[in-house]
Amino acid sequence: MKNIAYGEMLKLFEQILLKYGFSDEKAKLISRIFADNSLDGVYSHGLNRFPIFIKTVKENKVNIGKEPRRVSSNRSLENWDGQQGAGMYNAWLSMKRSVVLAKENGIACVSLFNNNHWMRGGTYGWLAAESDCIGICFTNAVASMPPWGGKESRLGNNPIVIAVPRKEGHIVLDMAISQFSYGKMYEYELESKQLPYPGGFDENGELTTDPHSIRKTMRALPIGLWKGSGLAMLIDIVLTALSGGKSTADVTPEWTDTGVSQCFIAIHQKNYHQSLIENIIEYTKSAHPAEKDGRIYYPGERTLMIRKQNAENGIPVNEKVWERINSL
Amino acid sequence: MKNIAYGEMLKLFEQILLKYGFSDEKAKLISRIFADNSLDGVYSHGLNRFPIFIKTVKENKVNIGKEPRRVSSNRSLENWDGQQGAGMYNAWLSMKRSVVLAKENGIACVSLFNNNHWMRGGTYGWLAAESDCIGICFTNAVASMPPWGGKESRLGNNPIVIAVPRKEGHIVLDMAISQFSYGKMYEYELESKQLPYPGGFDENGELTTDPHSIRKTMRALPIGLWKGSGLAMLIDIVLTALSGGKSTADVTPEWTDTGVSQCFIAIHQKNYHQSLIENIIEYTKSAHPAEKDGRIYYPGERTLMIRKQNAENGIPVNEKVWERINSL
Repeated sequence: MKNIAYGEMLKLFEQILLKYGFSDEKAKLISRIFADNSLDGVYSHGLNRFPIFIKTVKENKVNIGKEPRRVSSNRSLENWDGQQGAGMYNAWLSMKRSVVLAKENGIACVSLFNNNHWMRGGTYGWLAAESDCIGICFTNAVASMPPWGGKESRLGNNPIVIAVPRKEGHIVLDMAISQFSYGKMYEYELESKQLPYPGGFDENGELTTDPHSIRKTMRALPIGLWKGSGLAMLIDIVLTALSGGKSTADVTPEWTDTGVSQCFIAIHQKNYHQSLIENIIEYTKSAHPAEKDGRIYYPGERTLMIRKQNAENGIPVNEKVWERINSL
Repeated sequence: MKNIAYGEMLKLFEQILLKYGFSDEKAKLISRIFADNSLDGVYSHGLNRFPIFIKTVKENKVNIGKEPRRVSSNRSLENWDGQQGAGMYNAWLSMKRSVVLAKENGIACVSLFNNNHWMRGGTYGWLAAESDCIGICFTNAVASMPPWGGKESRLGNNPIVIAVPRKEGHIVLDMAISQFSYGKMYEYELESKQLPYPGGFDENGELTTDPHSIRKTMRALPIGLWKGSGLAMLIDIVLTALSGGKSTADVTPEWTDTGVSQCFIAIHQKNYHQSLIENIIEYTKSAHPAEKDGRIYYPGERTLMIRKQNAENGIPVNEKVWERINSL
């Protein structure tokens, strides 16, 4: 491992994107999103994902020249076609657009179809909060969990993001619907470790903490069991109903998160009653820690801590990954 | 147990509400909400709850003469003061208002503070869907779960409702954030049964299915563990930020769900891409059942089945409860 300064990482990403034909504007924004995700410690959707993104560009799965195109508009509600352009670029523009409409009308919703993977959902929550808006957004994804009562995967882990502006640090929840992703379970398996909490069903239909059994049955748990199963389904249904785009059923056969559907809600008002929000945080943190030396965090708090740390010390990178990016 | 026809139940509720001083209009709407909840099989927020509602009326906790009052308005975003009126009446009017605004502007949000318990959240989801809108609403509640990493209850189980209109039966998710409510756990304990899945922590800090242990530690599980903990907190924060009303921290000391904050989002467009929604349902149901003779349901499907059954055969009521209501 070594540490790379944020500016250096940003510059390298930008150079590579320009080399692969992105416009100046797109290269600037996309490199910023990948670098910010890395700065915030979300390496899986930051630098570790960058080579995979470039691969999809090389394979012509990303229409790098395309801009999102508005398909319909009714004052506060718009639907856009992502035209299979760069997913994080389209998603960023969609939340920006929703913010503009919310500042005019109080609340707005931009739905987006034919988009590619948006990387970290939290990006668009932070964007809304930075723009002085409450942000709510979600995306669908390929099927990776069975519906409650079923055996085979039919539900995407469809992340949901909720963000609220706050002077001392925005509050940002960025939550996928699976209790543990398959990526996370594979990490545990490689280290011959059990999951800290049950993550799916074994071959006997019993809850298990054994990542290998779950990867065998492919019966990963949605959060809250039947509840998350319903929530994942509703997210997909709302997205499809709004955008007319692809549902989990449609994107799963290609297994690439290509052409997914997303939605970006922004709410704006003058006053978010900051002192009442501080009361909530204070009250929540007033519970005694369950573990010795344990701490209670609000969503987004640890991201800010990592952001500060990585800004000061540089972003920790695996040297092989860094070499690979340098050779792109 | 005996069965009571929907019309008979409706009439009795209405008579009682009139007797306790509600206006004709309010008595009509509130009796309908309680009867509909019973018809849909949600007895806990239907006939079983009706005597408790009347008790709060007798204790002057409900301002039966008050109407909700608009405090602020910005085109698609409005904030209303419930003036501690009848919770389900205010909530119904708020979703109706949100529907009107959504039909003008595409999307709308009505926040409501100083309200009383709205009974079944699903009521307002079904209302939105019946009004040809996507509906999203949530409420806060008294603290009943510890935040992740904490010991004492600081989070409400803050239900969230998402509804999508559909010709063959609306899709309505009505989900509280606790894995099992304390009411449900008490039912298991009374029958000396274990919960079907872990519902909280025991005294050693281990997950347990034993309802008695959880009722002792008061460490009930949020759905998805740390994820539901964050979600419950964000719901409370969004509600408070929007409405300036009471948060879980503020309503908990009174332990009555009096003066809670709520929010009602409606989205309207001409076309909800029904055939794509049918594809999602079909795809989800195409998974093989995990249990022999098991079935996979979409959210709202079983409610429709019970509604049909209770409409045909009458609503099953506990005779003592029915007597008690008759004597109100």
